[in-house]
Amino acid sequence: MSGTPRLSINQATIKYADLPTALEVTASAGIESIGLWREPVAEVGLETAARQLRDSGLRMSTYCRGGFFTLPEGPARRASLDDNRRAIDETATLAAAGAAGSAAVLVLVAGGLPDGSRDLDGARDRVRAALEELAPAAEAAGVTLAVEPLHPMFASDRCVVPTLRLALDLCRDFAPEVVGVTVDTFHLWWDPDALAQVARAGAEGRLATYQVCDWATPLPQDVLLSRHYPGDGVIDFAAFTRTVEATGYARDVEVEIFNAAVWDAPFPDVVARTTQSFATSVQPYLAP
Amino acid sequence: MSGTPRLSINQATIKYADLPTALEVTASAGIESIGLWREPVAEVGLETAARQLRDSGLRMSTYCRGGFFTLPEGPARRASLDDNRRAIDETATLAAAGAAGSAAVLVLVAGGLPDGSRDLDGARDRVRAALEELAPAAEAAGVTLAVEPLHPMFASDRCVVPTLRLALDLCRDFAPEVVGVTVDTFHLWWDPDALAQVARAGAEGRLATYQVCDWATPLPQDVLLSRHYPGDGVIDFAAFTRTVEATGYARDVEVEIFNAAVWDAPFPDVVARTTQSFATSVQPYLAP
Repeated sequence: MSGTPRLSINQATIKYADLPTALEVTASAGIESIGLWREPVAEVGLETAARQLRDSGLRMSTYCRGGFFTLPEGPARRASLDDNRRAIDETATLAAAGAAGSAAVLVLVAGGLPDGSRDLDGARDRVRAALEELAPAAEAAGVTLAVEPLHPMFASDRCVVPTLRLALDLCRDFAPEVVGVTVDTFHLWWDPDALAQVARAGAEGRLATYQVCDWATPLPQDVLLSRHYPGDGVIDFAAFTRTVEATGYARDVEVEIFNAAVWDAPFPDVVARTTQSFATSVQPYLAP
Repeated sequence: MSGTPRLSINQATIKYADLPTALEVTASAGIESIGLWREPVAEVGLETAARQLRDSGLRMSTYCRGGFFTLPEGPARRASLDDNRRAIDETATLAAAGAAGSAAVLVLVAGGLPDGSRDLDGARDRVRAALEELAPAAEAAGVTLAVEPLHPMFASDRCVVPTLRLALDLCRDFAPEVVGVTVDTFHLWWDPDALAQVARAGAEGRLATYQVCDWATPLPQDVLLSRHYPGDGVIDFAAFTRTVEATGYARDVEVEIFNAAVWDAPFPDVVARTTQSFATSVQPYLAP
């Protein structure tokens, strides 16, 4: 067993690896878990992806991602909800194919304001309505929908849910095994309320997945790509990780880095560097 | 009287205008109020600046800016606090020189994490401690310190106070006429808690100044410069402005735009465009 048995490589960290490569690079580094993305799964087809995941011996920690349901009623909204139903089924299939301890967790990004709209409350209402529509399918499939608050700099174009508090408020009327939240340090570190809301997520049984990467400035031209290896920025992983662990969270911890320089580096180097940064900055604060 | 009698041009909107030019351009456009910055005042000297402001017949709506006091104890922190004391005195002098209705309000930006630090709570404690040190000087001078929460994308390098809730919590033990808050739509629009906290600021008597500009994506390379004319982005100025006015706020409303294209345009054009966008997007929601 490695020194970081709960580390999971989110596939976005090695974005340009196809699915078989991502599985191979991860497994051969002695890592036990991976977070998968829909696009590389679609590339090989779901059945093949499930077989490749099974053969790899890896757990699946999450499946990324669904969501993008802030549009008003109409064909585009219907298409998005149908696509989310397919993502739910894919999540169940892949989680069943992964090694024991795999999590049937589908990460959801809410979506931004529709073109020309200034109505944040309305968009948030439509996120809640979408969860209501999707919850029965998720429950039937044994999948947890994990609403992910994104950093407020994405609030207009990507995710109208900018705080963990709002994410939990949106979950309120659903069973916690059906609708939970994604806690990602990059998106939440700045929030004076973050650790209290992490504790709340735990108390409500909604902490579906814990993801780590670091924040540093200056931000690059494309702020989507401003994520760093844990330890290379300003986030206090000790405080975050201890708070997550105190809730009883015992699943894998994903490292998910969107960063052009990381994406351009050789995959095995990225995985090695990820493991090293996790061992230094996160592992010491996990429950023994 | 113009159709926008409470409009104030924040001098940063015409950044490259020196003080006499900024006063002249603003007054000759029929605008009654201006928000001044320390650097252009220092260029001509405080006494001359006060005289020029008096001669212009304009009100001063705020003075920008103090703050940057997250450093640990030591000579740099002392120098910053001394500089803030000078800024308090300048605020009082200029407010007295401005036309009736001028506000002796000093806008404060807290500052970012010190180099190498990951301790947000510690930095926030030092902001509070700085307010404690400065409050007696502000009270003696009749100046209101207006703590400004900045957008969370600035939380590491510029302002550890990312929400209006935290800003108000930091003010809690001070008299409201001594320590209040700056409400700027650009920094707060994304926050599900923003309007409730604006109402709280009003109820606590701490709404020292209301500033408007818009948010749009994509963000430019330097995210500091991502502000737009009201109406050119996604912010719901109706909701914000009505909530501000419902508190009884009756002071000037500043337009403060950091944007390279705006800065490069001729000053009178910028002032005309500001007036027009304010008349369309903000004025209709001001109390009659």
